[in-house]
Amino acid sequence: MYLLNGDSKQTLDCSDRGFQYGDGLFETIEVRNGTPVFLDQHFQRLQRGCQRMLITPPDITLLKAEAFQLVNGADSAVLKLIVTRGSGGRGYRQPETMRPTRLFSLHPFPEYPDNYFSHGINVRFCHTALGLSPALAGIKHLNRLEQVMARSEWNTDDFQEGLMLDLNGKVIEGTMSNLFLIKDRVLMTPILDHCGVEGVLKGIIIALARANSIQVMEKNISKEDVYAADELFVSNSIIGIWPIKQLELQSYAIGAVTQRLQALLLALKQEEIHAC
Amino acid sequence: MYLLNGDSKQTLDCSDRGFQYGDGLFETIEVRNGTPVFLDQHFQRLQRGCQRMLITPPDITLLKAEAFQLVNGADSAVLKLIVTRGSGGRGYRQPETMRPTRLFSLHPFPEYPDNYFSHGINVRFCHTALGLSPALAGIKHLNRLEQVMARSEWNTDDFQEGLMLDLNGKVIEGTMSNLFLIKDRVLMTPILDHCGVEGVLKGIIIALARANSIQVMEKNISKEDVYAADELFVSNSIIGIWPIKQLELQSYAIGAVTQRLQALLLALKQEEIHAC
Repeated sequence: MYLLNGDSKQTLDCSDRGFQYGDGLFETIEVRNGTPVFLDQHFQRLQRGCQRMLITPPDITLLKAEAFQLVNGADSAVLKLIVTRGSGGRGYRQPETMRPTRLFSLHPFPEYPDNYFSHGINVRFCHTALGLSPALAGIKHLNRLEQVMARSEWNTDDFQEGLMLDLNGKVIEGTMSNLFLIKDRVLMTPILDHCGVEGVLKGIIIALARANSIQVMEKNISKEDVYAADELFVSNSIIGIWPIKQLELQSYAIGAVTQRLQALLLALKQEEIHAC
Repeated sequence: MYLLNGDSKQTLDCSDRGFQYGDGLFETIEVRNGTPVFLDQHFQRLQRGCQRMLITPPDITLLKAEAFQLVNGADSAVLKLIVTRGSGGRGYRQPETMRPTRLFSLHPFPEYPDNYFSHGINVRFCHTALGLSPALAGIKHLNRLEQVMARSEWNTDDFQEGLMLDLNGKVIEGTMSNLFLIKDRVLMTPILDHCGVEGVLKGIIIALARANSIQVMEKNISKEDVYAADELFVSNSIIGIWPIKQLELQSYAIGAVTQRLQALLLALKQEEIHAC
């Protein structure tokens, strides 16, 4: 189901700059019991992205109304929002009058086995390196070819995620998730100033950790740091927190900090769902 | 005018991966006297790009037929072709059965003043740096946010192009063009192994130069090299060769090598147009 600039339609003008240049942003939002979870945080990130990309952000009240209209009480779903710079302009040059496009779509929630959450996943390192592009780092924009290329490196169900390094060999994130390490009870996650996506859930996990006296460090992370970690997990808005049980030849226990963060996150989601 | 998978329509399914992830490629082709100029070279580059991006390339005979159908004898126009991985797949993962999308569109030829060609253009350096991404370097793909951001740095007609440096400060290309320098009668152009687009016209200019005993070097180029050049020009399939007369505070003469290449290129185009 689609809602394009408020209309129930699923075709788009080919001149849209989202299609022509990947000139836009997106959000992927979990829906539970009719509630788009962490909607405010998603809209805040969208606004930050619009600001950096000089796209006039759509009105948040309107976005919220459209989100709930499309969700329409759905029990469990994925809500995706794409915002583009709209049509027009000559070549790369921006249109003089910008009319951003907003597209909501609603999708079935993926059927992930429960044991990904409880017993962890298998992960590999990808060969495709993340390019270094400070101008776009952190933004959840529509230029996602590196992720597509990395995800094309395996085609079996043996691995649930692939970790990506940047050109300098720093470990940055998963193809669709952020990465966290725990070492000596300190929660660590890569700095994303040269590449990577600042996940909404990443921000929520960091806030939850700090509020619960877990020390957090955003730092440069090497492969060696990852191999030496006590616990590892990946996160995004749809999967929540998935512990990593196996990375290449290295095994990890599902540790106490990961389980505590999983419990804290579930509780926070429940609060949010009941408040709506 | 649009031709989408052979049909006269200009709306596209929103699930297309070109729109969702910038998961595709494009070509921009000059049309003169009903002829899409250097069409074979454009299709060859498209095929190389498809190969690197693991997209099944569309049938070239079909593409050629559709190109001529849309051009329909137009005297002067711009023909654009977008090829995407099509719809489907879960997230970044490729669809099991790929049905690439092909979209031709025909646009009026931009009305550039003749003196850009004859007397040169004004150019600036952009602040937006090109990220380093060897996996995507050289490919004319749909992830073009860096170009959009660079082109948004000026909004007047004082500059006809902006030159982009990479993260390491090497000069790479213009926002919409390749860059050439002439120093001591040697033609030089940046190596594009970490970023940049391998322009069809860049390839043709290099071949023309070599066939006419002009020495060519593809090398790393610094700002200092650019300032010290005897002649400078930018090229793409639509503008052809535009000499640079002014870059920031530095002026350049329209030199003999640039003029010779302009003449050779015009002659080659005429041949191509008459052969069709």
